[in-house]
Amino acid sequence: MYLTQALHRSVQQHPDRIAVRWGEKSRSFGEFAERVARFAAALQQLGVQPGDRVAMLSLNSERYLEYQMAVPWAGAVLNPCNIRWSPAEILYSLEDSGSTVLLVDDTFKGMVQQFRRESTTLREFIHCGDGKPPEGMHSYEALVAQNKPVPDALRRGDDLAGIFYTGGTTGFPKGVMLSHTNLCISGLAARAEGLARPGGTYLHAAPMFHLADMGLAFPHWVQGNTHSVIPMFDPARVLDTIEQHRVTNLCLVPTMIQMMLDHPSMGPHRDLSSLRTVFYGASAVPDALLLRAQKAIPQAEVFQGFGMTELAPVATILPSSYLSEEGRKHGKLGCSGRATFCTEVKVVDGEGREVPRGTVGEIIVRGPNVMQGYWNKPELTAAAVRDGWMFTGDGGRMDGEGFITVVDRLKDMIKTGGENVFSAEVENALAKHPGVSASAVIAIPSEQWGEAVHAVVVRAAGHDVSADELMAHCKTLIAGYKSPRSIDFVDALPVSGAGKILKTKLREPFWKGRERAVG
Amino acid sequence: MYLTQALHRSVQQHPDRIAVRWGEKSRSFGEFAERVARFAAALQQLGVQPGDRVAMLSLNSERYLEYQMAVPWAGAVLNPCNIRWSPAEILYSLEDSGSTVLLVDDTFKGMVQQFRRESTTLREFIHCGDGKPPEGMHSYEALVAQNKPVPDALRRGDDLAGIFYTGGTTGFPKGVMLSHTNLCISGLAARAEGLARPGGTYLHAAPMFHLADMGLAFPHWVQGNTHSVIPMFDPARVLDTIEQHRVTNLCLVPTMIQMMLDHPSMGPHRDLSSLRTVFYGASAVPDALLLRAQKAIPQAEVFQGFGMTELAPVATILPSSYLSEEGRKHGKLGCSGRATFCTEVKVVDGEGREVPRGTVGEIIVRGPNVMQGYWNKPELTAAAVRDGWMFTGDGGRMDGEGFITVVDRLKDMIKTGGENVFSAEVENALAKHPGVSASAVIAIPSEQWGEAVHAVVVRAAGHDVSADELMAHCKTLIAGYKSPRSIDFVDALPVSGAGKILKTKLREPFWKGRERAVG
Repeated sequence: MYLTQALHRSVQQHPDRIAVRWGEKSRSFGEFAERVARFAAALQQLGVQPGDRVAMLSLNSERYLEYQMAVPWAGAVLNPCNIRWSPAEILYSLEDSGSTVLLVDDTFKGMVQQFRRESTTLREFIHCGDGKPPEGMHSYEALVAQNKPVPDALRRGDDLAGIFYTGGTTGFPKGVMLSHTNLCISGLAARAEGLARPGGTYLHAAPMFHLADMGLAFPHWVQGNTHSVIPMFDPARVLDTIEQHRVTNLCLVPTMIQMMLDHPSMGPHRDLSSLRTVFYGASAVPDALLLRAQKAIPQAEVFQGFGMTELAPVATILPSSYLSEEGRKHGKLGCSGRATFCTEVKVVDGEGREVPRGTVGEIIVRGPNVMQGYWNKPELTAAAVRDGWMFTGDGGRMDGEGFITVVDRLKDMIKTGGENVFSAEVENALAKHPGVSASAVIAIPSEQWGEAVHAVVVRAAGHDVSADELMAHCKTLIAGYKSPRSIDFVDALPVSGAGKILKTKLREPFWKGRERAVG
Repeated sequence: MYLTQALHRSVQQHPDRIAVRWGEKSRSFGEFAERVARFAAALQQLGVQPGDRVAMLSLNSERYLEYQMAVPWAGAVLNPCNIRWSPAEILYSLEDSGSTVLLVDDTFKGMVQQFRRESTTLREFIHCGDGKPPEGMHSYEALVAQNKPVPDALRRGDDLAGIFYTGGTTGFPKGVMLSHTNLCISGLAARAEGLARPGGTYLHAAPMFHLADMGLAFPHWVQGNTHSVIPMFDPARVLDTIEQHRVTNLCLVPTMIQMMLDHPSMGPHRDLSSLRTVFYGASAVPDALLLRAQKAIPQAEVFQGFGMTELAPVATILPSSYLSEEGRKHGKLGCSGRATFCTEVKVVDGEGREVPRGTVGEIIVRGPNVMQGYWNKPELTAAAVRDGWMFTGDGGRMDGEGFITVVDRLKDMIKTGGENVFSAEVENALAKHPGVSASAVIAIPSEQWGEAVHAVVVRAAGHDVSADELMAHCKTLIAGYKSPRSIDFVDALPVSGAGKILKTKLREPFWKGRERAVG
């Protein structure tokens, strides 16, 4: 199978159906494929050879969809840039991947000068914004207009489809190599789970550089559904577009769902009746939020999933039937679901042996969706993928029916006095004290215990709880060795662009000059 | 992916769910997998090496399901024998595949003596019937009881999963080599089409040696559904079992559907309310029969498909939405549907160039479901699979929305005076005359035209229509060059065990000593 296969099928079966809508505009599958074949011709004209990496640095746009199809059509390899990274980080990923061509929109065109100066690999810059291209850059639209369509290069199977960089905020960026098979089978399995029914419209609200969006959109390619595009997540814009484009499918992280529900323009006058499926990942949704969402869009099925870029990207899915009022009786709320139709999932100990059900260990995943490896990093690849199993670095447990609950990142696990403590458990205990607004629990070095449990706490407004009080409180809820041995109070916790707490930053001062053994 | 992957998932997720029911008996997935792992141990104990072929000659049974899983579990390759073939044909397939072990049930144990005498490859015979095994044969149940479970050999991906013989009635048997990927992706795509919803029970009513049954059952393995088994198709037994096991899914050929509806025990007292999906293939269902079926089981979705063993086995699917009362408005009745989520389908001329929509040509199919080739027949493989495309030998046309209508086998096409005539079209014209009960149109040699259109007709009871009358009748409906140039009248047409008209037999006397160019 290959990335553009579903596009060919759509052209064969429904060339006049709308492929993409943005604002008031739209294009049919026939028109879309014609532009893809022309832009692929332009890439080849610019010297792009089979297997070359072509990068894109842009907000979401209809051209981003064309890029995703035209690059494999030309025989080349995708390299979508993380728009949240600093120019230095982006440059690193461009150099590391050896990208020769970069597409840039108006939002990011200011970075081109630096890239041009410092890059050793980039040869061509294509302006994929609107209006006149900056000096020395090709115009995307001119390239499409000037070139005649070329046949699909038909790279497929184990051929490399894209390099997707991860890890910018928590460590050094790594380029995840995904093949056509990785992405296609993952998409087919998601389609089989019911994630993209016929006649749907998928809204690209999350950033398109991220595989969460591309991966969740892929079943819609397979199904021949319509894509709706907005430049970036914005709660009002999402609500407007759902109404305007009759959007059926959304993929969001929980904070985005919260922002939509909390938005002033949200209310009973909103017509969200077209929504059929909301998929969320990244973290579990608090129950209160889930209930609010289900009340606001009662007709929609809500799916939860667990995955990572290395898994193209979904490993487990919790079907909506477990999140409904009736389904809650199964007690699977807070789980991330079970192995998809193409994956195998196990929870193992430090020696890779499966642990008994209910015991926390590392979640490992095997299947045709497991990445080919990290680009140019054979040692990292060998450490992450062993005997076909991807070691996710996530701690979790499996219940008697194969449902996975993700407990913690392994690096957030604290190894103290021979015991493993998961920070999430300690944070849950802290959260139950009225004096705590937020907390982050980390490992700090300890002469006596190897590592010690340390909490960083934001006090609730109007409360002046002490460290001793909180430690005593925790001991009433969890084992003594799990309770914090020290507590710092701060005004706010450092968070990433995606809203994740940056524990790396919190750990930094404690571990300066020391090596922390993880895994 | 690999054949036993879905079984492992079922054991992880629902070990206590019923895996298989037969008569009053049943086994859970946990028990089933335990027996599979024990029988795999037995095979290894008997000297079966990775890649060795293990054959089975048996009516349907719960042990046939265990065989399908235990052989790959042991690292070996399936070779299910066609129970409709003569002993000589079966022996040919056993020898050709080099099978070393044969499982035989009570129905076929009488053939073992001949096989033992004449086979050069068979070493071990396993009696998988009930009761005491015949002299010199292992007892299946004893082997299961005596051996400890072994770990799954985990053959996977492009490893050979099975050799499936086809072509016994129409030509020389060929062994179709299907890999784990072939079968698994085909099953996943069928699951994605909605062919196996959660909580279902699939009835193995068609013979299990045939890939139609194994292929249509595979999505149910993927879904973790229950298998119901009866020894062979029998209309009353099917009706009884639907009621007894609350069967949800059936896969049948149209004549089987007819036999069920016509059976004396059929009637409004029958509780067929559990049926959700009926899939039929092999040939189009006459509209009157389809309407009767839909009236008898109004709640069930009816799917039609087109495929062949070489395609593992499904290439196109017509969803039930086109066969319902409402869906008929789309005018797709009689079509075999469109490319599945994993296949590409084209209609091409003799040079392999795609023909315009609506034009008849050869149907070709590409995708991860296309066989690895014919066992030990590289020339036949090279002729059938070119540049990844399987040339099906079926003539058909594609409409503007990608729907395929299968018109004829290419070898049933008559090449006369530079024109191609499809026998089905001529047969349809003949059928419209009240004096015709049945007909078969074939090519016979012609000095003048290369081939000439010849009809073999069974007169309707009480009619005495002449050849001249029928030729004149045809010319009022179809072009002159398509109308028969000669007609023979017979009492009955020769048919195969599966109910197909044996045109080879009809052509034989005309072509004796001559070579017919086909394709």
